Amino acid sequence: MNPFIEMLKSHRSIRKFTDEPIAPELFEELVRAGQAAATSSFLQGSTIVRITDAGKRARIAELAGNQPYVANAAEFMIFCADLKRAGNWCREYGKPFEGDYTEHFIIATVDAALMAQSMVCAAESAGLGICYIGGIRNNPGQVGELLELPKGVYPVFGLCLGYPAQDPEVKPRLPLSVILKQERYHEEGDREAIAAYDEAVREYYATRSGGGHGISWSEQVSVLLSEKSRPHMRDFLAGRGFTFK
Amino acid sequence: MNPFIEMLKSHRSIRKFTDEPIAPELFEELVRAGQAAATSSFLQGSTIVRITDAGKRARIAELAGNQPYVANAAEFMIFCADLKRAGNWCREYGKPFEGDYTEHFIIATVDAALMAQSMVCAAESAGLGICYIGGIRNNPGQVGELLELPKGVYPVFGLCLGYPAQDPEVKPRLPLSVILKQERYHEEGDREAIAAYDEAVREYYATRSGGGHGISWSEQVSVLLSEKSRPHMRDFLAGRGFTFK
Repeated sequence: MNPFIEMLKSHRSIRKFTDEPIAPELFEELVRAGQAAATSSFLQGSTIVRITDAGKRARIAELAGNQPYVANAAEFMIFCADLKRAGNWCREYGKPFEGDYTEHFIIATVDAALMAQSMVCAAESAGLGICYIGGIRNNPGQVGELLELPKGVYPVFGLCLGYPAQDPEVKPRLPLSVILKQERYHEEGDREAIAAYDEAVREYYATRSGGGHGISWSEQVSVLLSEKSRPHMRDFLAGRGFTFK
Repeated sequence: MNPFIEMLKSHRSIRKFTDEPIAPELFEELVRAGQAAATSSFLQGSTIVRITDAGKRARIAELAGNQPYVANAAEFMIFCADLKRAGNWCREYGKPFEGDYTEHFIIATVDAALMAQSMVCAAESAGLGICYIGGIRNNPGQVGELLELPKGVYPVFGLCLGYPAQDPEVKPRLPLSVILKQERYHEEGDREAIAAYDEAVREYYATRSGGGHGISWSEQVSVLLSEKSRPHMRDFLAGRGFTFK
């Protein structure tokens, strides 16, 4: 197997970074690598807002649920789904703007994710560590104000980049048989496979250097889906022009 | 710059593939590379349905808007956002299921995209070509039936993988100044930068081996956002349990 695939398979989030800055030339190359990712219908519906201002960083760290690495990683940026940049041209060319359909939301959100993940793969290949920050959706309105996001643009997630100051274990993933199906979706054998996986996850928490709550995967995700997760998102998005028509 | 970053920057979709199959060991490694990507709250909210049946492939190629490479690429799979697998455990542990919030939709959709893009980066590093197939959302209901997708699972996009039988030019991307902002979102200088970019895109279509319509970026995206794009998506998703609460 090539070393790059081995590197991808060993991904883990990094939450402690050294003070070493990322060379501007490298940072630019990482963004260009992200930009080269596929984009639906050539929309390029994503904008990165890079935050270097310490005060802004500290405020966002707080809004994201007190995640200190948002403030102290070498680089922190927010990936936004952006339908405004393209939408501007509807008016420009005298066309009606209809870019508030569920499909447009999907396209722009997926564009932001594909761009970010190619940038992440590039960053890790350069020896950097990364951590996605979904926590910015805890307070998307305040984050949006800080970033002066206009209508048609929403913050999907943040991303911390920097040189790792920790070397955490790789977190085990679901068995291949559970996430990869042949010809059709089915759940045959999943219950047994997930039971064994739950044990592996408990073991991971019991033995990893960072310690942890030792809760199995199935217990963790059952909590996530039994909660009204970020119930403010629909109204926030509607206010930004994402109305899921 | 490392060769992997150079490779990422030279990405282009491949729509003509050789007959060479992908070795099963390599295919499995690619899926594992995708699986290792970050996943929000450890949800792992994505399931891949790999289609090898020729009849099913031909039918999906048709449903996706007659894209022959869906039928003849070495591998074709559909990435699904999956809240069912995790949701099963709410019932199992006697918890209410609340996984139908907009936030849950975002998490699962982004999970599918991150997984796919890491798999794509791995595939390209192994000399494979790829093409995303958003066209499966033209007829998501029929695609879902073919794949026997249950409630809580929706097909986000398809992906063709295979050894390239063509070498298309890299499609130019928006200037960095347009998609990367510092500290705050703004559009200063974008109009001029996009005008120059529009010329580059016209030039790309005029000179590329595949020919093309020669329409600028701003014209293309103004069409996309002036159309009621896949207006069936909201009702389709609602019927699958994604109700954007």
